[in-house]
Amino acid sequence: MESCIERIKNDIENVTKITATPNMGCTRFSYGKEDKEVREYLIKEMEDLGLFIKIDGVGNIRAKYIDNNEDKPSIMMGSHIDTVANGGKFDGLTGVITGLEVIRVMKENNVKLDNPIELIIFAEEEGSNFGTTMVGSKFLSGTYKLKYLNKLKNDDGVTAYQVMKDFGLDVDNVENEVLKKEESKAMVELHIEQGGILHSENLPIGIVKAIVGMKTYKVSLEGVSNHAGSTPMYLRKDPMVGAAEIITYMEKVAKENALKDTVATVGKIHCQPNGSNVIPGQVEFNVDIRDVEIEGIEIVAKELIDKTKEVAEKRGLKYSIDLVGESDCVKLSPKVISAIEEVAIEKKYAYKKMNSGAVHDSAMLTEITDVGMIFVPSIDGLSHSPQEDTKFEDIKLGCDLLLGTVIKLGKSNLMI
Amino acid sequence: MESCIERIKNDIENVTKITATPNMGCTRFSYGKEDKEVREYLIKEMEDLGLFIKIDGVGNIRAKYIDNNEDKPSIMMGSHIDTVANGGKFDGLTGVITGLEVIRVMKENNVKLDNPIELIIFAEEEGSNFGTTMVGSKFLSGTYKLKYLNKLKNDDGVTAYQVMKDFGLDVDNVENEVLKKEESKAMVELHIEQGGILHSENLPIGIVKAIVGMKTYKVSLEGVSNHAGSTPMYLRKDPMVGAAEIITYMEKVAKENALKDTVATVGKIHCQPNGSNVIPGQVEFNVDIRDVEIEGIEIVAKELIDKTKEVAEKRGLKYSIDLVGESDCVKLSPKVISAIEEVAIEKKYAYKKMNSGAVHDSAMLTEITDVGMIFVPSIDGLSHSPQEDTKFEDIKLGCDLLLGTVIKLGKSNLMI
Repeated sequence: MESCIERIKNDIENVTKITATPNMGCTRFSYGKEDKEVREYLIKEMEDLGLFIKIDGVGNIRAKYIDNNEDKPSIMMGSHIDTVANGGKFDGLTGVITGLEVIRVMKENNVKLDNPIELIIFAEEEGSNFGTTMVGSKFLSGTYKLKYLNKLKNDDGVTAYQVMKDFGLDVDNVENEVLKKEESKAMVELHIEQGGILHSENLPIGIVKAIVGMKTYKVSLEGVSNHAGSTPMYLRKDPMVGAAEIITYMEKVAKENALKDTVATVGKIHCQPNGSNVIPGQVEFNVDIRDVEIEGIEIVAKELIDKTKEVAEKRGLKYSIDLVGESDCVKLSPKVISAIEEVAIEKKYAYKKMNSGAVHDSAMLTEITDVGMIFVPSIDGLSHSPQEDTKFEDIKLGCDLLLGTVIKLGKSNLMI
Repeated sequence: MESCIERIKNDIENVTKITATPNMGCTRFSYGKEDKEVREYLIKEMEDLGLFIKIDGVGNIRAKYIDNNEDKPSIMMGSHIDTVANGGKFDGLTGVITGLEVIRVMKENNVKLDNPIELIIFAEEEGSNFGTTMVGSKFLSGTYKLKYLNKLKNDDGVTAYQVMKDFGLDVDNVENEVLKKEESKAMVELHIEQGGILHSENLPIGIVKAIVGMKTYKVSLEGVSNHAGSTPMYLRKDPMVGAAEIITYMEKVAKENALKDTVATVGKIHCQPNGSNVIPGQVEFNVDIRDVEIEGIEIVAKELIDKTKEVAEKRGLKYSIDLVGESDCVKLSPKVISAIEEVAIEKKYAYKKMNSGAVHDSAMLTEITDVGMIFVPSIDGLSHSPQEDTKFEDIKLGCDLLLGTVIKLGKSNLMI
């Protein structure tokens, strides 16, 4: 019993041709025209499978496949269908389409489980509309409250509340729709890795142990802006060279002084006045630090603070360091991890137990249910780009692993 | 015989209150409303002194004080009156107002020289309109030709030719107005230092030996943009850390491996996509290298090229290095330098013979006449900013030094 690669491919192609940016990747924001069209396509597929569909106040689609024991907690699968601007074909969508395929295969093979299956499509994962990620899963987990939707605004200044209302959602009811413990036995999300570990090690499957936590600091260095020609080196208070020194050191610390998986990134920098012939007056940059162990994050954060202080003092710069973003490390369920691993071993799939450097919807649900994740490789580790790619052979393997895991968790009457 | 601090102050105050940005520094672009008003004020002052005024095709004002021997070559003084946006009170204007004061004092004291005196106000020094600096002096020296004015455009897309024509200038005649060797015996420009050397050494006077040359390189590093969380340190091709390494090294080279006065500056940086949680795909930055000795520039340029190659190879980055700006080192006239120095010694002024890290109008004239420059201190080295400041006591000292130098060069009948 296995999934059909052609059906998976067909679904992914049908969805990804619906984009606001043809020939420039997938642009499919939640609550937009393309989202509506894709929802219609997927709901039609779900209805054909006889699923019971419910859409909550923020647009999460919950589709239940009830072959047996409808009142028992569900084995949940799913991911998101929205994208960043000019994103790729596989981010999010792969978890939704493989979930759909799992139900198709189970129905075709008349698999009866002790628990119902639920396919969930989380709304607004990427934060493309309001700059806040995982809005759908944060409402489903009860992390966000209704009133927060009036604080979130899109680039046109329209509140999330209004955007969702205009999309036809019963927003006011959302707080009554939080996922209950008794509704869910487990949640398994299949997702592309969005990093290059599986690809570089030529492995088709990753089993996620933990999702990294993150601290993001904004560092501001202020010196004295001056003429690049008439200010001798020894009279300078140059924040750019100070920033360069800190950035170089952050890489060294993440590589050498922290833990095995700690990463530190400076992806954003802003220089004032940013003139070729002017010593900058101010340089600001963000340092994004992640690890599955808080200790790794704390080591780099402490080094960042110490080094910034040292550099600022040495160079006569003013400085500030602000924590501008933070999320906790999340350990996934040993029970689900074991189930996935057992199936992978039974099916003789090469796999790696690994951590996720990106945060995902299902990580929001770990307080409510047992969560596991399956990764399939991103070619060259690329994601959030039109170049994002994954082999359909690997997606099929991931789908079969998801199928086996769901059956194992649902105590099937069949051998898998 | 000395200058009057109150008159200098009065002139500077009268001019600097004419600004397009009241309370936000001096904004007085050539050919603008404020420029017109200031020209009217200064021409009135010049006419009161009986100067013979000629305005050339690009708006350089040449005002001749003929006390004797009108056909002999002039001793020239002057600077510019235009500013950058939100500039300071003293950049350029100080050289014009002190020149005016020198003529006032000579007339009051009935000083007769062997040569006439010419006060020149160069147009469009700062490049505020067309992005090209020293347009006036480049035309006066014959460096630029008329047709070039059709290539220069302001932010509204209007050509320099049209802007000048609309200002009422006889632009088509400009090539006939190039300064001839027989017209000029020497040129002495007084200017604020725009750097912090004199201020930091508590000296009122700088005598400029040479004006630095410059090479500006644009360095582009291209890596692989990827998720900041899911890409382990060892799989990264991060151009930001590469850039930081090069920037840090450039400072070290300028300080330790090059010559005494070599400076290197990274004032402009651009990062793509510049997202806090994304490893950048591309980082571009400019390296501005200056010295009075071409050797100093070449040492840093070679190290920049070698280091960029090394960093790019080590990190798997693509790179390019382009020379985007260049100007030659200019040695000023030993004859004029000696004259200034002799007067400074006679007057017992503390002074320093130094180089100019900024380029100035008079540097354009070194092929035609003997050029010298006098610097007065910039407080804290600040310039091109509303905070630009110079003590009027220092300006008076500079003015008296200019007066003495002009008299010495013009072989006065008076003791100075």
